[in-house]
Amino acid sequence: MKVLDRISAVDGAWIEVAAQRQMQLTKPPGSLGRLEEVANRCAAIKGGLAITASRPRIVLFAGDHGVCEEGVSMYPQAVTSQMVANFLGGGAAINAFARSLGIDLKVVDVGMVSPLPQSSELIVRRVSPGTRNFCKTQAMTLDEFDDALDAGVALARDAAIAGCDLVGFGEMGIGNTTSACAIAVALTGQPVETVIGMGAGADAECMARKLSAIQRGLALHAARLSDAKGILMSVGGFEIAAMCGFCLEASARRLPIVMDGFIATAAAALAVRMCPAVSGYLFAAHRSAEPGHGHLLKMLELEPLLDLGLRLGEGTGAALAMKLIQASVAAFTGMATFDSAGVTNK
Amino acid sequence: MKVLDRISAVDGAWIEVAAQRQMQLTKPPGSLGRLEEVANRCAAIKGGLAITASRPRIVLFAGDHGVCEEGVSMYPQAVTSQMVANFLGGGAAINAFARSLGIDLKVVDVGMVSPLPQSSELIVRRVSPGTRNFCKTQAMTLDEFDDALDAGVALARDAAIAGCDLVGFGEMGIGNTTSACAIAVALTGQPVETVIGMGAGADAECMARKLSAIQRGLALHAARLSDAKGILMSVGGFEIAAMCGFCLEASARRLPIVMDGFIATAAAALAVRMCPAVSGYLFAAHRSAEPGHGHLLKMLELEPLLDLGLRLGEGTGAALAMKLIQASVAAFTGMATFDSAGVTNK
Repeated sequence: MKVLDRISAVDGAWIEVAAQRQMQLTKPPGSLGRLEEVANRCAAIKGGLAITASRPRIVLFAGDHGVCEEGVSMYPQAVTSQMVANFLGGGAAINAFARSLGIDLKVVDVGMVSPLPQSSELIVRRVSPGTRNFCKTQAMTLDEFDDALDAGVALARDAAIAGCDLVGFGEMGIGNTTSACAIAVALTGQPVETVIGMGAGADAECMARKLSAIQRGLALHAARLSDAKGILMSVGGFEIAAMCGFCLEASARRLPIVMDGFIATAAAALAVRMCPAVSGYLFAAHRSAEPGHGHLLKMLELEPLLDLGLRLGEGTGAALAMKLIQASVAAFTGMATFDSAGVTNK
Repeated sequence: MKVLDRISAVDGAWIEVAAQRQMQLTKPPGSLGRLEEVANRCAAIKGGLAITASRPRIVLFAGDHGVCEEGVSMYPQAVTSQMVANFLGGGAAINAFARSLGIDLKVVDVGMVSPLPQSSELIVRRVSPGTRNFCKTQAMTLDEFDDALDAGVALARDAAIAGCDLVGFGEMGIGNTTSACAIAVALTGQPVETVIGMGAGADAECMARKLSAIQRGLALHAARLSDAKGILMSVGGFEIAAMCGFCLEASARRLPIVMDGFIATAAAALAVRMCPAVSGYLFAAHRSAEPGHGHLLKMLELEPLLDLGLRLGEGTGAALAMKLIQASVAAFTGMATFDSAGVTNK
């Protein structure tokens, strides 16, 4: 993957320079708390103090999962396409958030079972009509993996070319918490039982099927789970591979990247496994209600900005966190200094 | 206080009606977490489902504190007026936040030591040039208390008349964490030592002076701390009394009210002491780094939306939380239903 060669670590020296600048702004030292850290890290990402976050974009990747035939979700697989149609019609939570918060939204079909009619609003990067059932075979071939990853790379490149200075990503895919759980177990080594969650609202029987599917999938592919590509091909999803590619390219473009919840974080964690320098570009939006999310955040050493019990996906948490990041940048670049404002410092 | 007679409790029946509506929207039940509770409570405040939060306003009350002569702050008292001049010039954190987040901002002088030149941007409701030192005498007279409270009432009325459908409030006043600590101890009965914090950045000696001042003030006025008016007159501040009045009138006008941090919450807690029904209108924006804030939130049974280590005041936390409330309302009113979007429900 050529993109890996273009990623360099954020320039940590700028964190200290930015922290010095924070001390000159008209507020008690450290009084903006974590928002000061956010702005300082944006400076490290940018490699300078002239940071901006005025053109935010969220890319929403949709794909279907063969493992659904194991009965891991309460919703029929058709809901993936139905919800994407809802995104295009502006009726989903992420649409309401994006409108309310002024965030540009792009929707990408990376491989739903049921394609939607052509639309200027829908970006089509279909790898195939859903992954295979990872309880029976690998979820995707190497070609499919490449195509899915490239879709994410392309979307991050498009965002950079469009002048976006803050990017986020989210997903839609019935069954994809099952895939994300398997990925989280493979990456963190935590017991499946501590990683699994209710997803979109599984009941006890559904949870039992989900647990069994993850255990069987991980057992079947045990020999191929030592690297990110192997994990993705074995138990991943097209939208998860695409989000992974999105993280890689956005890092190469030196953009601040806002992860949504559990599934998005699983994708980002895979990108970090491929290239540890990616972690410097990542912001965790919120703490998902999914238990596996905490394990991934701990591994990434990231503390989310929000903890509101969200478990929706779609980039909804990323949208909310983007406003906090924009506010932190606005304060950093828009505040007067003690000198310029004639305010006595202590 | 006539305003008290105009406050009625929020209509809790609408919470259940709103919760039923949430179940019809195109998302897994409960998947927006606390943002669903926020929208549902907005419905109870409004008394209907046609909630809006498109015209947010923050009112920032500034006043000075006689207790500063006890050396309770690292900053000279002149900083109150200097920072208010900074607000008017657009150079403070709250200005940057308000611009970035699209929030209307009003700045009110309720009694700073140094008045500022007349300006169309500054609302002047000066009670007197700062409160008296509560270690020696009561902070304010009954007339002063009435004037300060009325200032807040007037500003909430103005916001309602201007069509604001979401209001927040914050403060500026060197020394006012000392006053807020004394209020928090009087209201909650918690030991001063567990309530006191570093304010704008007190060192150990300053903290010792602050602790002593609070203890002496509470001892001197012990006989008058049984009700909110007595507490405010004894150890309060003009901006705190004004924020209290703001909460009362905003509740009477059935507006959702976003409290900023520790000092704002102390003011709101006094309003609740005067009229328990006020609590139904309050949203806690963030968990301040000030220890006393937690005691007040616990007493009010409110869980803040954000926990970012902010300790700045000025309404900065309220500004951030307002975007979350706006997003929750946008989702509630702007999302499609399963039926309307043709999405299969489980």
